[in-house]
This record gives sequence, structure tokens and C-alpha cells, in this order.
Amino acid sequence: MLPDWVYEKCPGVSAGHREAAIARQAQLTKPTGALGRLEQVAIDLAGLQQTEQPRAARVPIIIFAGDHGIVAQGVSAYPQEVTIAMMSNFAAGGAAISVLARELGSSLEVVDAGTLAQAPVPGIVTDKPRCGTRDFSVEAALEPGELAFAFECGQRAVVRATAEKPDLLIVGEMGIGNTTASAAIAASLLGVSAEEIAGSGTGVDATGRAGKARVIDAALARHGLKASAPPEQVLSAVGGLEIAAICGAIVAAAQQRIPVLIDGFIVSVAALAAVRLNPSCQPFLLPSHQSAEQGHRLVLRALNVQPLVSLDLRLGEGSGAAIALPLVRFACALHNGMATFAQANVPDRPA
Amino acid sequence: MLPDWVYEKCPGVSAGHREAAIARQAQLTKPTGALGRLEQVAIDLAGLQQTEQPRAARVPIIIFAGDHGIVAQGVSAYPQEVTIAMMSNFAAGGAAISVLARELGSSLEVVDAGTLAQAPVPGIVTDKPRCGTRDFSVEAALEPGELAFAFECGQRAVVRATAEKPDLLIVGEMGIGNTTASAAIAASLLGVSAEEIAGSGTGVDATGRAGKARVIDAALARHGLKASAPPEQVLSAVGGLEIAAICGAIVAAAQQRIPVLIDGFIVSVAALAAVRLNPSCQPFLLPSHQSAEQGHRLVLRALNVQPLVSLDLRLGEGSGAAIALPLVRFACALHNGMATFAQANVPDRPA
Repeated sequence: MLPDWVYEKCPGVSAGHREAAIARQAQLTKPTGALGRLEQVAIDLAGLQQTEQPRAARVPIIIFAGDHGIVAQGVSAYPQEVTIAMMSNFAAGGAAISVLARELGSSLEVVDAGTLAQAPVPGIVTDKPRCGTRDFSVEAALEPGELAFAFECGQRAVVRATAEKPDLLIVGEMGIGNTTASAAIAASLLGVSAEEIAGSGTGVDATGRAGKARVIDAALARHGLKASAPPEQVLSAVGGLEIAAICGAIVAAAQQRIPVLIDGFIVSVAALAAVRLNPSCQPFLLPSHQSAEQGHRLVLRALNVQPLVSLDLRLGEGSGAAIALPLVRFACALHNGMATFAQANVPDRPA
Repeated sequence: MLPDWVYEKCPGVSAGHREAAIARQAQLTKPTGALGRLEQVAIDLAGLQQTEQPRAARVPIIIFAGDHGIVAQGVSAYPQEVTIAMMSNFAAGGAAISVLARELGSSLEVVDAGTLAQAPVPGIVTDKPRCGTRDFSVEAALEPGELAFAFECGQRAVVRATAEKPDLLIVGEMGIGNTTASAAIAASLLGVSAEEIAGSGTGVDATGRAGKARVIDAALARHGLKASAPPEQVLSAVGGLEIAAICGAIVAAAQQRIPVLIDGFIVSVAALAAVRLNPSCQPFLLPSHQSAEQGHRLVLRALNVQPLVSLDLRLGEGSGAAIALPLVRFACALHNGMATFAQANVPDRPA
């Protein structure tokens, strides 16, 4: 049901470059292992980028926005109009991710992958098969052709971003209701109950969260989504257009050897679906942050990704990945820029 | 035994600016609280800096270096010459903190506050009462006049740094053997056994760590340092010149209303001593990272400071604070730069 390219194998990690990076870390003027997790980040990037000098300088940010029919069931603390209003805020430079992109020197592209906007929003790329998903509590969110379109929307955005020759990619999302769709996808892919994975999203209270979980469990039952359901079927039944676009973008980036800094709950769920569809993209998923959203921990564990920071963020937009990017940049700068014991004439520890 | 200025009260936090910052956070285009701990960082800084626009742009880094007589007891994995060699490495730009300072656009001043260097090292400020401390397993590390000199060394460095009109300050350290001195100070100030607080430093194994703890416990008994011992007496008996200089620098910075980003174990111990000497400096201690060094957690808890990142760093040099600085900068940029709901015409959640 998805385009053939989605299943094509991503390139492998360069074992030689990884090993050269490990050897270099042991020569730098610091106690063995003293840079902790930053050493591993540099080593991983060296292997992924096939280089002795891992880089995280050029990091475009792409945000995919979409609306969700499930909002009719009262699952969100904010009104649905916020999705379109926030797209304009991204473009105007007033949103958190706009500020972060400026601080990082990153380009920011916003793609309307499926909001309710009837006309193109200025400053936004419109690339959608329909306006919003259907209410998955009563019918499938997306038809197969719409799902495929969304994957290609993600791929097209990656193709545009490659003009910058990116070292890494950050993908983010905006969509009132999308923690509900993501929790439904994750519950199905991980085989856990909605109660375990549904969080407070933009800020529903305990009653709202319980209602959200009930809506999800009922929908999974209605669509016959068991733990063994194929990811294509899950995404079609309870997915979102921006979530599917992110899935496609992750696979397309990994196929181009571009590692992706994984943001919060929604992007992590899209990444999980991407790995289930095409396991060869897994090494290209790099950790960023641990969100305050309840299900994020479970999804990161399934992705085998350990977050770099845990700051109780729960904003989405790619903001958590953007906030973690300086740590990746430091890992590269330290790896490439520090002197070795021999260069600095510093005595090493006795062997 | 210390100069009078050490005990002079630091300025207070501006409650008005804190409250204005809290009000502004509630108006920014994001779900309430969605920026997690970064919101609190911005609010705290606004109160400390007495401003509506908290800043972390100009952040000089000062490293204090010292040698330690206790090294004669075999407490370190690296030879003592490393202290002087690393000072040259800092000045030459090859050390981790040199790389980080460049990435951050921070000035880096290295102060020889008491290494064994007999002649001034090029590129380093020499400001010391003696070369290295005495071996505290057999006698007091410092005489009272030497301790006072080290505090004034710290104050002088802060005075030099104020020429830059710093928004914040990072202090770091270098000194083979200084995790042992720091663990001895912390064990005494916190009233815990050395076993609980002595870590592996630059990398001693379990046997080395046990030996370090025995040396510390014996020294605390020899010097009669009970949990109620005055900090001046503790610093004199088992302290270090760079540790005392950092203590002085922290108090001097807080007295000038300059918040200090607290680095790892050694700087945190110096900060704890500073708070015990002059409790009014406490609000000016800002969190940075959780080190892998075992005792750091206990000391941060005593300081009532919750780290922003935990990356298994154990390098010192101010590197953990430097690595956390972009998060503080993001907190400021988001606070100052995001649009409000009204400005962006984004619907807020129903009241």
C-alpha cells in the first residue's frame, strides 16, 4: 500500500570510521571516558557519516502540520484552530521552534501535510492529499492512497532539504489532536493498552487523559488492530497525515545517509513506525530529549535510543531535538578539535 | 581567618522581575508549562539579574589550577605533572574547555592558584601564595594566611572578569588530586563517610577508590573535623588552593549580582563551602550538569540545585557548565523572543 522506495535498504554504518573515532577518543587530552555520552555521540556520527570529522553544523528543521478528525471526541485542551494559527506563527518567527532555529542558524521549513486550511498559508509549503484526517473513532483516518501521498510528502521535503547538504536533520510536528493519534499508533505497535501510553498532550487533566485512553482502546478494537497488525494498516486506521509524512521523511533521510535527531513523543512514534516498515533506518535515529509526555519513555525504549536531556519539555515542533542539537555539536567539536596527549605533550596515565 | 568581604551579604532576588517573568511565560504561544525546566531557568535569571530580558550571552570562563600534596598517597590515576601540562594545553587551545569556550564565544582565563610550577606559565595568570598544598594526611593543607590569599585570588579574577560585564560566570578547575581534597571537604561539611562521597576521579579502580576513602577518613580524624567544623577550618585542613579560589570567586560574583553556573563535583564542593560561609550567595548558584563522580549527587542535593543535563561527564575544567550553557541561552531566547498568544493571534485554551 506504500510506495516501493519505503522498503529500500538504507546504507550501512562504516565500521572503519567508527573504530578510528574510538581510537581517537582514547588519545584526546582527558581521562579515558571523561566526556561520557558525548564520546559515543561523536563515534556514532563518524560511523553514520563515514567520516573522520563528524559534523552537525548544517541541520535543517522541517515541521509537518496536520489536523485530526479525532478532535471531535474532545481529546485536546486547545481548540483545533490552533493548528493553522501556529503554522502562521512558525512562518512569522514567533513560535518556540522559530526562536530555536534562529539561535541554531538552522533553516526552518513548514509543510502543511494535512491541516484544515482551505487555502495555502503564506510562507508554508502546502503538500497534502486532503484537509485533516477522518475521525478514527468512527472510520479509518486515511485511505491507502492518502497515506502513500503523505509518505511522499515527507520524501519530497527531504529532497528539498538535501540542497543544503545537511549533516543531520530535525523533523517536528504541529497538530491539535496528534498525541491521541500517536498514542493509538504506539499502543498498537507496542501491544500495550492506551492507558499506559496516552499522556496529557497539550494539557488535559486526569479525566481528559482517561477519556483519551478510552477513545483509543475503542478505536483499536473497532479497527481490529492487534499487536501484530502491519504498520501500514495501523497508520491508515488511526494515523495522521503529518505523522505519516514524518515517517516518510525519516526513511528518505536515512536512505540518503542523513541521521535524524529524534524529537518528542509524536516524532518518536513516527520513527517507530518507520523502523517497523524498514528496520535498516534504525541506526540513523539519534537521541535528543526525554519528553514529559507519558508514553515517550516506552517508545524510546522500543527504539533503543537513550535521550541526551530530560527537561520536562512537552511542546513538540521539533523543539526538543533543537534544544539537544548544541550537545551534538559539542560532541563533534570536541572530537575534532581537542589536542591528543602527544600533540599537547601531556603525560598519559601509566599503561 | 578569612577576609571580611567574604561574609558581606549578597544582593537579593527581585521578586517583581520574577513575577513579571512568570506572567510572561503564561502568555507565550505554547501550552502552559510546555517548555518545562527552561521556563524556570528564565524566571530565576530574570529575578537574579533584575531584568525583564534575562541574558546569558556574555559568559566568561575562569579556570583555577592547583596541585595537591595528598597525591603522595597515591590517590590519582594520572601523574602530578599533568596539572601543569594541562594549564599549557588550556592556554594553547587543545583542552576540552578550550574547544567549548571557542564554540560558546566565551573568554577563557586560566589562573595558577597554586600549582607546582616554579615559573609563570605563558598565557596563564599566576596568583598563588605557595606551590601546591601540603599533604593533608600528615599536616594541614594550608595555613590560614594561604587560605585567605586563595580567596582573594578568586575575588581578583572576578574583578578582572567584570570588565566584560558578564551575564553569568563559569568557573572550572584543574588539579591532579583535587577530587580527593573535594571529597574530604564534602565528607566533613555534609557529615558523611568518605566511602559515600569519594569517587573514581580521573579513573582509579575500586581498590584505588577504597584507598582514597581510607586516606580521607584518617585525615578527617587526624584534623578533628566533625560535621560541625567551621568551613574555614575544613578548607584549611584538607582544602586546595584552586578550591578556595573558586569559593572566593563564587562569593565575589554573587556579591556583584553575577549568577554562577555550577560545574561538576569539585566546583560544587567549593560552592557548598561558599554557601556555608555566606548563605546569601545561594540563589546565585545555577545548575548545569550531573557528573558521573559519585559524590556529586549528594553535594547538589545539599545545594538544592537540580542539574539540567546528565551525560556521565567527569572531566572538570568547567566543561559540564559550558556544555549546559546553550540550554540557559535557549531559555533566555525563548523567554525574550517568542510571540504571545495576543501578538500571534493564536487562540489560547479555554479559561
